[in-house]
Amino acid sequence: MLDWEKIYATRTKRMGASEIRELLKLLEQPDIISFAGGIPDPALFPSEDFQEAYNDILSGPEAGQALQYSVSEGYPRLREWIVQRMRARGINADIGNIFITSGSQQGLDYLGKLLLSPGDTALVTWPTYLGALQAFNAYEPRYDKLDLSRNASPEDYAAAARDAGSRVKFAYLSADFANPSGESLTPMEREKLLDIAEALDIAVIEDAAYRALRYDGERQKTLLTMDCERNGGIENTRTLYCGSFSKTLSPGLRVGWICAATPVIKRLVLAKQAADLHSPTINQMAIARVAEKSFNEQAEKITRVYGSRRDAMLDALAKHMPAGVHWHKPEGGMFIWLTMPEHIDSAALLALSLKTAKVAFVPGNAFYADGSGGNHMRLSFSCSSPEVIEEGIGRLGALLAEQLAAAA
Amino acid sequence: MLDWEKIYATRTKRMGASEIRELLKLLEQPDIISFAGGIPDPALFPSEDFQEAYNDILSGPEAGQALQYSVSEGYPRLREWIVQRMRARGINADIGNIFITSGSQQGLDYLGKLLLSPGDTALVTWPTYLGALQAFNAYEPRYDKLDLSRNASPEDYAAAARDAGSRVKFAYLSADFANPSGESLTPMEREKLLDIAEALDIAVIEDAAYRALRYDGERQKTLLTMDCERNGGIENTRTLYCGSFSKTLSPGLRVGWICAATPVIKRLVLAKQAADLHSPTINQMAIARVAEKSFNEQAEKITRVYGSRRDAMLDALAKHMPAGVHWHKPEGGMFIWLTMPEHIDSAALLALSLKTAKVAFVPGNAFYADGSGGNHMRLSFSCSSPEVIEEGIGRLGALLAEQLAAAA
Repeated sequence: MLDWEKIYATRTKRMGASEIRELLKLLEQPDIISFAGGIPDPALFPSEDFQEAYNDILSGPEAGQALQYSVSEGYPRLREWIVQRMRARGINADIGNIFITSGSQQGLDYLGKLLLSPGDTALVTWPTYLGALQAFNAYEPRYDKLDLSRNASPEDYAAAARDAGSRVKFAYLSADFANPSGESLTPMEREKLLDIAEALDIAVIEDAAYRALRYDGERQKTLLTMDCERNGGIENTRTLYCGSFSKTLSPGLRVGWICAATPVIKRLVLAKQAADLHSPTINQMAIARVAEKSFNEQAEKITRVYGSRRDAMLDALAKHMPAGVHWHKPEGGMFIWLTMPEHIDSAALLALSLKTAKVAFVPGNAFYADGSGGNHMRLSFSCSSPEVIEEGIGRLGALLAEQLAAAA
Repeated sequence: MLDWEKIYATRTKRMGASEIRELLKLLEQPDIISFAGGIPDPALFPSEDFQEAYNDILSGPEAGQALQYSVSEGYPRLREWIVQRMRARGINADIGNIFITSGSQQGLDYLGKLLLSPGDTALVTWPTYLGALQAFNAYEPRYDKLDLSRNASPEDYAAAARDAGSRVKFAYLSADFANPSGESLTPMEREKLLDIAEALDIAVIEDAAYRALRYDGERQKTLLTMDCERNGGIENTRTLYCGSFSKTLSPGLRVGWICAATPVIKRLVLAKQAADLHSPTINQMAIARVAEKSFNEQAEKITRVYGSRRDAMLDALAKHMPAGVHWHKPEGGMFIWLTMPEHIDSAALLALSLKTAKVAFVPGNAFYADGSGGNHMRLSFSCSSPEVIEEGIGRLGALLAEQLAAAA
């Protein structure tokens, strides 16, 4: 019998199960109130529009094309729709700047594959999106902490990498309503990030998965928009914009995109030819039809619902959380990020909470490249009604109050 | 402006455009007869069954699940159908042995990711499937030639790798109607391959993409079946079986699977979580429904049609090819592999053929890990009627006769 551990590649050493996804499996007990999964509410999916779209495709002249092999770049009509959307943001994109991925997660995987040799440095925020760390880990990078609130100079980042015998390849972040922090970069922080990237001559991976989910505050320019403005158009940019239909239309169809300068798009096409040939054509066709028909109404509907759930969670937190627990109001997205006193271990708290309070969340350390951040937790408000949010946060607040009182 | 070449990972150096896919772009001129693309005939897709399936899914109780995030392993009902199919081959698989991929191409990519560290050796046949070389290339292996017709001992393979400072990780091949050679392993060659793999303690990647397309001759046991028989069941096997619905139901939906021992499946699930979360649920649901309803009839229909096209091509070759050109009769699949005199360069011949004879094929060297094999060509009969085949092979035979006469 073959000892598989003996023949696995070294890169598999950091392949770990997603704590979030493992959690999701446990959460099927009906009496748990879950603020854990960062997923859209399926009640809001435009199911009828999709039914009409698949029908239309499979009864029409594109039926053969829908079921046949296709080009790796993606379905032109969908790429055209995305072009218009990117142009509305001041990005002079053309169809050659758009590459369809199987969700923005695949975009992150391919960008890791394209850019990271083992030992290269990726700059990520502390905390950052867990799925990005998992995607990049397969290419064996090291991570340094990207912190736009401190006055680190580009040379500080370069020196840290150099000291480790490495060099920085890119900075990854979500500029709008980041997972898990819910925070957005200020215009000044955006400029600073591009300054740093230009000084280091590295790429910027802009994860825009939550971009469409703004509930209040002012719309900010995307990093790619600012990069275009600075450098006279998309062909001179260093920003790799990862978009997704998962939060707006449907995650199950796995359709996202990368918008970037054409040399990068061409390389990504080669990567995709080798990795899975192309994303399923029929789903790209369906997304194109539904987006053309009702993207704006759909976006309005979900921002209205999620916005009210965010407000309900903010209200409940203000009412039920004991002193010593802190959070910011996110202007969009799906998450509120709680900071508890240093001595709280939120993984242990979760185990306790699942038993007693019957409330689930994601422990903060899952989102730190170095495993720190244990005194944070991520709460998602996207899938719960205001009533359930009030009940769940009430129970969680009581549990936390007990814990803090016991430690005092 | 960022010099992208400067920041690409070393692994991208071997990312080349697929000659086949680049060719496909050129072949849209209507006056070319193409035997180049190895794709199914879209006229044979069960489009109505798919239309019914998508309708059924999106109007039924699974609509929300179809559009939502899902588990990385794949849709249970589809995995159960595959389990029954694998059991019919004498493989004691359970649902935990089945992992859904976005086409078998993604299976090859993930297995490369799982097993290959840079410099590791993969044993492949000369020629082999171009897409496998492209998938593995991203993980920077070296290749040695697997030749089951010579009397190489396991130690010969081990020594060749050792001399290059490497070690063998797996042997990759297609046991039935291989792309591009059309050939199948004899039972004795299958045993020999497993002997070698056991002696080297390596994995075997069995690419079964064409397995369902047998037109005559006797059905052979899959390598995984034989491995189960030798070792008392699937949990003790070293064979990683890559299956696909692309040649039978639809390639555009991108649904394939890996059947293997559970430790490997568990690692693949982690790889997929990090790379694209899961294959689109709705397509897995549609494939499951269509497979349950009409897989056997569909398989019968396409083998009848492709079988008659193979016969037409064999007849035309016998009639039109000049002396000095050789081929074998494939018992299934989509390809006939032509061997021409040594001095013929089939890439140059293709350029000439596209201009004069207006017939397309794939030059042989695309399928060799070392770029040799220039005196071969791959002809696909899957998408042409017997009349077109007769016409195209007639023109190609005349061109080849001219070339051979000119060189004589």
